[in-house]
Amino acid sequence: MKYAAVCFLCCMTFAFASAQSQAPLDYNEMADPSPVDSASWNAMPADRLISFGDVDVRYSKRQVPALQQPTTTWKTIAWKNERVHTQFVVASRKKIFQLQVEAGSLTDGKGNNINAANVKTGFVRYVMTDELNKDGGGCGFRPDTRAFDSSLVADGIDFIPVKNVTAYSVQPVWLSVKVPANAPAGNYTGTIKVKQYGGEVLQTLSYSVEVKNYTLPDPKDWTFYLDLWQNPFSIARVHGVQCWSDEHFAIMQPYMKSLANAGQKVITVSMIYDPWNEQTEDPFYSMIKWTKKKNGSWTYDYTIFDKWVNFMMAQGINKAINCYSMIPWGLNFKYYDETIGRDTFIIAKAGSPEYNAHWKPMLADFAKHLKEKGWFNKTAIAMDEREMKDMQQAIALIKSVDKNFRVSLAGNYHPEIQQDIDDYCIASAHNFPDDVRKQREKAGMISTYYTCCVEGFPNTFTFSPPAEAAWIGWYAANKNFDGYLRWAYNSWTANPLTDSRFRTWAAGDTYLVYPGPRSSIRFERLIEGIQDNEKIRVLKSTFAKNKDNQKLQQLNAMLAPFEIADIKSKGAAVMLNEGKAALNQF
Amino acid sequence: MKYAAVCFLCCMTFAFASAQSQAPLDYNEMADPSPVDSASWNAMPADRLISFGDVDVRYSKRQVPALQQPTTTWKTIAWKNERVHTQFVVASRKKIFQLQVEAGSLTDGKGNNINAANVKTGFVRYVMTDELNKDGGGCGFRPDTRAFDSSLVADGIDFIPVKNVTAYSVQPVWLSVKVPANAPAGNYTGTIKVKQYGGEVLQTLSYSVEVKNYTLPDPKDWTFYLDLWQNPFSIARVHGVQCWSDEHFAIMQPYMKSLANAGQKVITVSMIYDPWNEQTEDPFYSMIKWTKKKNGSWTYDYTIFDKWVNFMMAQGINKAINCYSMIPWGLNFKYYDETIGRDTFIIAKAGSPEYNAHWKPMLADFAKHLKEKGWFNKTAIAMDEREMKDMQQAIALIKSVDKNFRVSLAGNYHPEIQQDIDDYCIASAHNFPDDVRKQREKAGMISTYYTCCVEGFPNTFTFSPPAEAAWIGWYAANKNFDGYLRWAYNSWTANPLTDSRFRTWAAGDTYLVYPGPRSSIRFERLIEGIQDNEKIRVLKSTFAKNKDNQKLQQLNAMLAPFEIADIKSKGAAVMLNEGKAALNQF
Repeated sequence: MKYAAVCFLCCMTFAFASAQSQAPLDYNEMADPSPVDSASWNAMPADRLISFGDVDVRYSKRQVPALQQPTTTWKTIAWKNERVHTQFVVASRKKIFQLQVEAGSLTDGKGNNINAANVKTGFVRYVMTDELNKDGGGCGFRPDTRAFDSSLVADGIDFIPVKNVTAYSVQPVWLSVKVPANAPAGNYTGTIKVKQYGGEVLQTLSYSVEVKNYTLPDPKDWTFYLDLWQNPFSIARVHGVQCWSDEHFAIMQPYMKSLANAGQKVITVSMIYDPWNEQTEDPFYSMIKWTKKKNGSWTYDYTIFDKWVNFMMAQGINKAINCYSMIPWGLNFKYYDETIGRDTFIIAKAGSPEYNAHWKPMLADFAKHLKEKGWFNKTAIAMDEREMKDMQQAIALIKSVDKNFRVSLAGNYHPEIQQDIDDYCIASAHNFPDDVRKQREKAGMISTYYTCCVEGFPNTFTFSPPAEAAWIGWYAANKNFDGYLRWAYNSWTANPLTDSRFRTWAAGDTYLVYPGPRSSIRFERLIEGIQDNEKIRVLKSTFAKNKDNQKLQQLNAMLAPFEIADIKSKGAAVMLNEGKAALNQF
Repeated sequence: MKYAAVCFLCCMTFAFASAQSQAPLDYNEMADPSPVDSASWNAMPADRLISFGDVDVRYSKRQVPALQQPTTTWKTIAWKNERVHTQFVVASRKKIFQLQVEAGSLTDGKGNNINAANVKTGFVRYVMTDELNKDGGGCGFRPDTRAFDSSLVADGIDFIPVKNVTAYSVQPVWLSVKVPANAPAGNYTGTIKVKQYGGEVLQTLSYSVEVKNYTLPDPKDWTFYLDLWQNPFSIARVHGVQCWSDEHFAIMQPYMKSLANAGQKVITVSMIYDPWNEQTEDPFYSMIKWTKKKNGSWTYDYTIFDKWVNFMMAQGINKAINCYSMIPWGLNFKYYDETIGRDTFIIAKAGSPEYNAHWKPMLADFAKHLKEKGWFNKTAIAMDEREMKDMQQAIALIKSVDKNFRVSLAGNYHPEIQQDIDDYCIASAHNFPDDVRKQREKAGMISTYYTCCVEGFPNTFTFSPPAEAAWIGWYAANKNFDGYLRWAYNSWTANPLTDSRFRTWAAGDTYLVYPGPRSSIRFERLIEGIQDNEKIRVLKSTFAKNKDNQKLQQLNAMLAPFEIADIKSKGAAVMLNEGKAALNQF
């Protein structure tokens, strides 16, 4: 008993030493550079407006939403197993203490229900963003935030159960319904209660979901090849945990599980230190420890690599392992040298004798390790766009070690090397020639597209119109891309919750989800587009099986408008909503 | 099986709906208004300085600490069961990824150890503060932060296991050792390893603790009457949880357990809505629901009151329940009126017929409820300083309901009513007449002192010299106060982690601990002073029992310098360190 008492006190060495909160803290957003739009608030007929809104709009924080007609009802159409969403807005002249939302079950009136647990609501958060360059793109350094117009935009989605709302502000609420796979087709209706402290109901909203007799596959069975690069070092920094500790993996779990549920196929591996020349707030450390022994031979420690890959596979991300990079931006290769007893590095150009001497033993050892693990057939040595000669030299070296070593590239389209690139991702402005794409498909090779800072639209900057994130999946369907790549799932800025601006590129370029973990309008809508892509695939395959050429033609006609060049004039939202209306007609 | 699969998907309605981090997120501090002190960095002999520092100093973030002589050793003296602390500083011209500290066990070389689990380190955090008024106090409105000099000061203590350090910045680390109650007296030595990513050791520090043959009682047995008012509404807001939900209580638990371990005696209860006229960022809602029935009679719902009191008692805070307030600042009393079906209020002056009609039935019902719960003898109707007539009227009404109803007051010293105030807390500038204090002690009444915005020093603003927090316990010992009250343990500002400034009062007035939960230099040092007060009490009682008048005189001589008037000229740190040196001689 005495021992127990002492031990209890030990745990109390500091006031809070062993105390950990079970939920992420709420936080305050940055001050809005736009003034309160007093006219809009004065014109509001009551102290509060609670209405469904438009999922394509990032509502201003300090201006009453300009709704054509406030409405407390919402109707949508969904497949079984599909997740559908909208947002409603709470605008208030008075502060609201503990705004909370209570969702009820939906019922079809015939005894079938969609349980309330399938309905989720989240508070939309405001983050600081900037804008495109004058040239229409988002690349380049931005050392001075004053050189760009900064604004506060609705983007993050926070799943805290309650939130205070300050006077004269707008609080959008994200509403999502996941239709169970086994829900019979029919029309389901339900209500949402918007409350404040003490349970007082401020507004009741009603909505209905028409469930069609089609079933969306589970995310693990989606064929859309999603590749959002993960940054475990950012998570360690923002959560203040030791890299690769058990706590780190526990914290990464929900982020990576969510990514798996978005259909992610690829595990991002840094096989060397800093493959991207410190371009992110948190550089990537090598997941493989390279050691040069005193006798000049090499050893490679795969402990962290194995832990990371096993962990990611356990989350359901298990199709591919892409290892960066043999031709990094700095051509700087760090390793531990036993002779001098510390880390050092060489700089070597692809194809040079030093380069080959550095890489060849490693690739041979790595191939052996991967084969032992049973991972060789899903692992690629991954590169970003480099000079053609460098890429060719690297490919030749890889293939000299094992002709079956997979290679991946994100860059422009190069006919000279395409046959060697198992997973080839090209910029959205490019296309694979149709015959090449078909050959690749037949050979089981992956052909996808990406956007980064270059593309003004469609894109997923924090100021991008939300519909563009969903549009991405439709474009892939129209152009027969296998999927989409973005280089940054979570390469967070210094203050990612409040400020998405970074020292380079348009704001939001470096991450799609927020610490917490928290989601975002961009991420939810990206998933929406992937779902649509899967629905299109299911229909295509069904119609093809039934030899229903008329329906196939209708599908193609539905997709044909999805051309990047038309976004500027027509807007992604218009295109998308027309497409979705047509898709839901099938 | 099918059902299970569906259910799994339900939980995934949103990417992150059910995902909760296990640790609070790290965060970025506000930009430092002071420039980097380049001269100090250029003068640093190496890229890094790691040295023990002075616990009385708030080290600047962007200036190399001006240490007389950098040192990697630290020596201290402690009693058994005492917690002792210091800080060391890491100053670096280069960024450090994943700074971490590994503490080893301490050993006396004779087979006795102080386990490493008793050694804790925390990263000191920087928060924005302001300064005293020109008049030397900290009261009044501060709507414009530019009217005061703002600076970034070291105050919070964060228990994340690792932290990045930016280039040209200082990261102080708080080091605390809790000596086990059963550790034999002796000299214990140990080491601390300061590391970065990958486990590389940057510096090894060594230290020793001389454990004396005295034992400090457990916090639950401390007689020092600590009363820091708790604000559960702030915790609900900052953590984004529903007030009084299970999650809310789970989140409050570590905050309140820490408060109990500081020796807190009193549970703060809001018995009406907003007793302090919205003076805090989060107003207090009533923990008792007052309902006026259609027939004009009253009912009182104690559900939340009971939950709160039971919860706090379970944390070890169980000596007193102080209920605010019968004479609130607005004299505005809110209640639910069944006739009109909503909340309404009356405004009534103490002593008026309406006031008496409003309060008398409540007090009678409340007394009955408290007696049923067994809490009547520890519950006080609590007031802040008001006009004498109002206080007298309120006391008369309370006593008319039950002459044994306890009353507490925080205010000036008033001989007219002191005999009715069971728990009387007076401003630090005041003293109880010696005979009165003795009478009160004999009668089991509590006599304490407080500081708030009025007192420039000693105080616990975020810019106050850290030693002043510890000085508080010594002053109580010198003046024979039973303890100390501060009105705000955690009435957080809008952005408490980064900005301690508030719309009224000097910065830090409204909270002693940070969300997370995180501790602070102020809170840790306040506890240090309370420990010292307990040590003095133990010695006094030992010497008195032994009739050792010489030692008693030495003790009194040691305490005599602790006069508020001398802080300005001598400094709290000098007084305190002289006092502590003398105390550790016994």
